[in-house]
Amino acid sequence: MSAPAVPDADLLYRVRHSAAHVMAQAVLEIYPEAKVAIGPPIENGFYYDFDLGRDADGKVKSFSGEDLEAIEERMRRIIAEGHAFHYKAVSADEARDLFKDQPYKLELIAGLASGGVDEYGQPTGEAPVISTYRQDRFEDLCRGPHVASTKEIPADGFKLLSVAGAYWRGSEKNPQLQRIYATAWLSAQELADHLHMLEEAKARDHRKLGRELSIFAFDDEIGPGLPLWLPNGAIMIEEIERLAKDEEEKAGYLRVRTPHLAKEALFLHSGHLPYYAASMYPPMEMEGLRYYVKPMNCPFHHKIFAAEQRSYRDLPLRLAEYGTCYRFEDSGALIGLQRVRSLQMNDAHIYCTEAQFEAEFIAVVEMYRRYFELFGIERYVMRLSKHSPEGLGKKYVDNRELWLKTEAMVRDVLTRGGVPFVEAEDEAAFYGPKVDVQIWSAIGREFTLATNQVDFAQPGRFDLVYTDEHNQEVTPLCIHRAPLATHERLIGYLIEHYAGRFPVWLAPEQARVIPIADRHFEAAAALTARLKAAGIRAKADLSSERMNAKIRAAQLLKVPYMLVLGDREIEADQVALRKRSGEQENGLAVAAFIARTQGLIAERSAEL
Amino acid sequence: MSAPAVPDADLLYRVRHSAAHVMAQAVLEIYPEAKVAIGPPIENGFYYDFDLGRDADGKVKSFSGEDLEAIEERMRRIIAEGHAFHYKAVSADEARDLFKDQPYKLELIAGLASGGVDEYGQPTGEAPVISTYRQDRFEDLCRGPHVASTKEIPADGFKLLSVAGAYWRGSEKNPQLQRIYATAWLSAQELADHLHMLEEAKARDHRKLGRELSIFAFDDEIGPGLPLWLPNGAIMIEEIERLAKDEEEKAGYLRVRTPHLAKEALFLHSGHLPYYAASMYPPMEMEGLRYYVKPMNCPFHHKIFAAEQRSYRDLPLRLAEYGTCYRFEDSGALIGLQRVRSLQMNDAHIYCTEAQFEAEFIAVVEMYRRYFELFGIERYVMRLSKHSPEGLGKKYVDNRELWLKTEAMVRDVLTRGGVPFVEAEDEAAFYGPKVDVQIWSAIGREFTLATNQVDFAQPGRFDLVYTDEHNQEVTPLCIHRAPLATHERLIGYLIEHYAGRFPVWLAPEQARVIPIADRHFEAAAALTARLKAAGIRAKADLSSERMNAKIRAAQLLKVPYMLVLGDREIEADQVALRKRSGEQENGLAVAAFIARTQGLIAERSAEL
Repeated sequence: MSAPAVPDADLLYRVRHSAAHVMAQAVLEIYPEAKVAIGPPIENGFYYDFDLGRDADGKVKSFSGEDLEAIEERMRRIIAEGHAFHYKAVSADEARDLFKDQPYKLELIAGLASGGVDEYGQPTGEAPVISTYRQDRFEDLCRGPHVASTKEIPADGFKLLSVAGAYWRGSEKNPQLQRIYATAWLSAQELADHLHMLEEAKARDHRKLGRELSIFAFDDEIGPGLPLWLPNGAIMIEEIERLAKDEEEKAGYLRVRTPHLAKEALFLHSGHLPYYAASMYPPMEMEGLRYYVKPMNCPFHHKIFAAEQRSYRDLPLRLAEYGTCYRFEDSGALIGLQRVRSLQMNDAHIYCTEAQFEAEFIAVVEMYRRYFELFGIERYVMRLSKHSPEGLGKKYVDNRELWLKTEAMVRDVLTRGGVPFVEAEDEAAFYGPKVDVQIWSAIGREFTLATNQVDFAQPGRFDLVYTDEHNQEVTPLCIHRAPLATHERLIGYLIEHYAGRFPVWLAPEQARVIPIADRHFEAAAALTARLKAAGIRAKADLSSERMNAKIRAAQLLKVPYMLVLGDREIEADQVALRKRSGEQENGLAVAAFIARTQGLIAERSAEL
Repeated sequence: MSAPAVPDADLLYRVRHSAAHVMAQAVLEIYPEAKVAIGPPIENGFYYDFDLGRDADGKVKSFSGEDLEAIEERMRRIIAEGHAFHYKAVSADEARDLFKDQPYKLELIAGLASGGVDEYGQPTGEAPVISTYRQDRFEDLCRGPHVASTKEIPADGFKLLSVAGAYWRGSEKNPQLQRIYATAWLSAQELADHLHMLEEAKARDHRKLGRELSIFAFDDEIGPGLPLWLPNGAIMIEEIERLAKDEEEKAGYLRVRTPHLAKEALFLHSGHLPYYAASMYPPMEMEGLRYYVKPMNCPFHHKIFAAEQRSYRDLPLRLAEYGTCYRFEDSGALIGLQRVRSLQMNDAHIYCTEAQFEAEFIAVVEMYRRYFELFGIERYVMRLSKHSPEGLGKKYVDNRELWLKTEAMVRDVLTRGGVPFVEAEDEAAFYGPKVDVQIWSAIGREFTLATNQVDFAQPGRFDLVYTDEHNQEVTPLCIHRAPLATHERLIGYLIEHYAGRFPVWLAPEQARVIPIADRHFEAAAALTARLKAAGIRAKADLSSERMNAKIRAAQLLKVPYMLVLGDREIEADQVALRKRSGEQENGLAVAAFIARTQGLIAERSAEL
C-alpha cells in the first residue's frame, strides 16, 4: 500500500515534516528514555514535543542551548546517512505494540482506533487509517507525507530556535512537555534570510521601539490594551489624521463627530447586539437603561444620515470620522499595539446608489493604493471575505440571496479593477462581504491592515432612504472603509516597517540642533525657534554632554537631521547637517535647509 | 414697630417685591374667588402663584393673554393711585383671622407659628415673627421690604410675560397653581433692553440655530446629552482645535492622547471615587474588574507624567489633550449643548515647581484673555472658588492648611496680575481651589466657561516626582486648565454670541457660488474647485432655483460670502460679491477675493 496523497504536500512542507521526524530520532538517540508526543510542520518550520521526565529534585527536565546544538549535530549526521522514509499501514493492535513504551502515542492510537481523532490529537471526519513512517531505526505514528530520503532535507537549511513549555493537548491539567521549535528551508540562503528577518523583527519590535522612542506606554491602573499616547505618539497620530483629512477632503468626504457610547437600543437596532456582543464591553446601567461603549462607528453615522432629509443629489454622501471604538479582547490575547482594546479608527461610511457603487468602491481601493505607495508598502493582497451558509442567522444576516448578490458585485468590481485578490469563506462582517487587506512590512512580516465592506443590511434596518429622481424613496447601499486601519495597528506596523526611522513628515522630532560648545547655546536656541516657526519640529540639546554624545543621543532617537552649530556656522548663518543615515553636508545655509525640509514635509516624501 | 431691615433690600429688589403685591391685588380685584399663594421677587422680575379653582368641566382655570393685559392695566391704575405700604407685626391668631379665606396663607402661617418655615414655605433658622404688608385694600403675609408707595413702582418699567403651571410647594401631590411671571425694571428703557435681550436670546437659541444651520443633532436611540456633530459642527470643532493647537504650541504645550476608560483602580487612586462618584457613569464589569468611562482627563495625564523619568529641566511640562469625558447629569437637567453628558474638553495639565507657579498661572490667564479678545467677549469676571471647612474630608481633600495656602497663592497671583475677580466659598474642585470664568454673550446672557485649577493633592497621590538641581525628588504642583471649555459649551455659546453669523474662519461654509443661469453652472463648479484648492470652504448652488432664491437660501445659512456669477463675471474672471451683511461689491477679481479671504482666515479676523 502506498502513502496517501496529502493536498498541500509541497516540497517545503514535506521537508519540514521529515525534519521533525529526524529531530525526534536524534532526541531519542541522545535521550533514550524520552517520551515523544507530536511533531507537525508549521509556518516557517516545525516543532516536536518531548517528555524528558523529572530530575532527582522532581523538576521537569528540559533542553539547554548546548543540547539543541548536539541535537542539530546529530540530525545532520542522520540526514547525511540518507535513510529512506518507509510508509506502513498498521492495525490498531500492531500500532499499540510498536509504541508500547510511548504513552502519548498510545493515547493517540486510542483516538485513531475509536475514530475521529488524528495523530495530532485533532478531531477529524476521516476514516481511521492508522499508519507509520520509519527512517533508520525511528518509526513514528504518521500520515505523511515525507520526502523519499533524509538526504532530501537540506542539512544547512534548518536551525533549532528555541524550547518552550507546552502542555500535552494544550491543557494545563496534562503533563508539561518540552517543545523544540525549528525553522527549515530549502537552502542556506533562505534560512539566512529568515533568520535575518527574525533578528530584524526583534530589533524592530514595536513594543521595544515604542518605549525607546517614547511613542506609547501602558499602565496597569488604566488597563490592558489601552495605550497612553505620549507626546511623540500624539504627533504621529496628528500627522496621520492630517494625511487622512487631506486625502478625504480631496475625495469629497465630510467629517463628523459622534459620542463614544449610546443606549442599548442603538446596538439592538444595528444588530451588533446580539451578533457582535462577545466583542463588546459590558453595559453601564443608569436611569433604568443600559449604555454601551461603541465597538464601531457605523450606527452613529447611519443616525447622521437619518438626521436630515436626503435626495439623490446628496449622494454619494461620504461621512468620515476618527472615532475611537472599544472592543473586548481577552486580556491574554493583547499584544502591544497589534491587539488592543481601544481602536482609533480611520473610519468612513459611503452612502451611495447601486449605480454609484462600482466607482465608489474602486475609488476606495485606489485610496488604499495611494497610501501603500506613500508608506512604501510593496507587497499586499486583498481578500474577499464571504459568508458561510452555516453562519446565516447566527454570525451573518439571514439572507442568502443578498449575500450571493453582493459578493458577486464585489468580485466583479475587483476583477474589473485589476486588483489582486483571493477569496475566503466564513470571514465576512455580519452585515455583508468585506475586503480585508494583507500587507507585508519591510522585513516580510504579514499584517492585516485595512478593511472595506459592503453593507446591504444596515441601511434598511435603520430605514435610511433618499428620494430619487422620480421622488421615490430608495434605500442606499453603504460602504464601510478604513484604509489607514486604526492608529494603534498602523503605528505598530509603521514602527516595524521603518524600524523607527520614520520619514521626515512623520518623525516626532525632525531636527535636533547641537551646539558645539556652551557659547553656542544661545544661537542654538534661536535657530530652534526659527525652525519651529518654519513648521519644523526641532529641539536644541542644551545639556552639558559633549558633542559626540549629543549626536549619539539624537541618533538613538532616530532624529532625521542633526544640525551642528559652531562659530563658523553661526557667523555664516549655516549649519553642519548630519543626516540619520550618516550622510553629512557641511556649510549648508539655514535657509536652504529650511526650504528643502519644508518641501519634503509638504510632499510627505520618503527622501531624507 | 418699624419694618425690619433686609440685607439685599436695594431699590430694584423692593420695586419687584412691591410689584408682586400690586399684581396680587389686581388679580383679586378681577377674580375675587382666587386663592393667593406666594409671590417673591426673582432675577429680572417677580412672580406670584394663584389658584383660580376649576371650571364647570373640572378643568383647572388659568389666565389667558388677554387676562394678563387686563391685570397689567389694573396694576397701572393701582400704581397711579399711590397707595402706601403699611407694615404690621401680628400674632399667629391675628394672622389666621386676616387670612381665614386663604388656605395657602393659612398653611404658611402654621409653618411660621410652629417656627422654622418662612412665608415662602422655606425652612428658616430665624425667630418666627409674623408680619403683613398692606397697600390699599390688599394685605399680604410678608416680611418685606417694600417701597414706601405704589407710586415708586415705574408704571412703564414692568411687563407680565407668561403663565406657567406650578405645584404648591413644588410637589406634584399638591394642587397645581397658576404662576404669572413678570419682569420689572427702574425705567422703560431698562425694560425695553431686557425685552430685546429676551427676544434676541430666543432668536439666537443655540438649539434652534443648531438645527437650522445643521451643526448638531440629538437622537433618542443614542441617548440624552450625547450630541451628534453634523459635518458643519465637525468643521467648527476642527477649527477650534486648530486654534487651541496653534496657541498651545506657541505656549510650549505637548499634545497627548489617552483612552476614554480605565480600571476602577485609577479613579480610586485619583480620589474621583468616592468624591466624584455621583457625576460618573456607572461601571462596566469584565474579567472580574470594574472599568469606568472617564469623567476627567487628569489621572491619565498624571500617568503620562509618571511614564518617564522627569527632571527639573523638563518642567514646566504642559500636557494638552482634547479628551472626551463623560459625566452623569440627570436627564431632566440636560439642555441642548449647554448641559450635556459628553464633554470634549480643551484640557491641559501643567506640572511645575512652586517657583514656576506664578508665571504659569498668569500665562494661562493671559491665554484666556487672548481667546476673549478673539471671540469679542468684552465682559467677564473670574471667580476664585474656595473650599468650605464643613466639606473637608467629604467634598474636599482633608488638609485645611494646604487649602488656605494654595487659596492665598491664587489670590495673590490674581491680585498682582490685575485680574478682576470675586471669591466664592464651597465651590472648589475636590483637589484644590479653582478659578471659574464667567463670561457674557453679545446679548448679555451669562455663561460659565473656562476653568483654571490648582492641584496640590493629586501629584502627591500619584507619587509624581521630578529630581531637582540637588538630585532630590520633589512633588510638582499641577495646574488644570480649560480656557476653551468644552466644544459643547463653547459652540453653544458661540452660536448665541454670533447669532450663527460666525466669523469667516469659523463659518462651516465660507463662500457660496451662485450662477445666474444654467449656462454658468460649469464656471460655478470650476470657481468652487478653485476656492477649495485655495483653502476656502465653498459650495456651488447648482439647483434649479432662481438667483434670488439662491441668495435667500445662502443668507438663511448665514454664509459670509455669496459670489454671483454671470457672463460678465466669467469673462473678466471676477465675481459679484454679496456679503452676509448685505454689503455688495461688483466686479471683484477672483484672485483679489481669494487673497483677502485667505488673509482674514489666517488672522482669524472678526472682519467680514
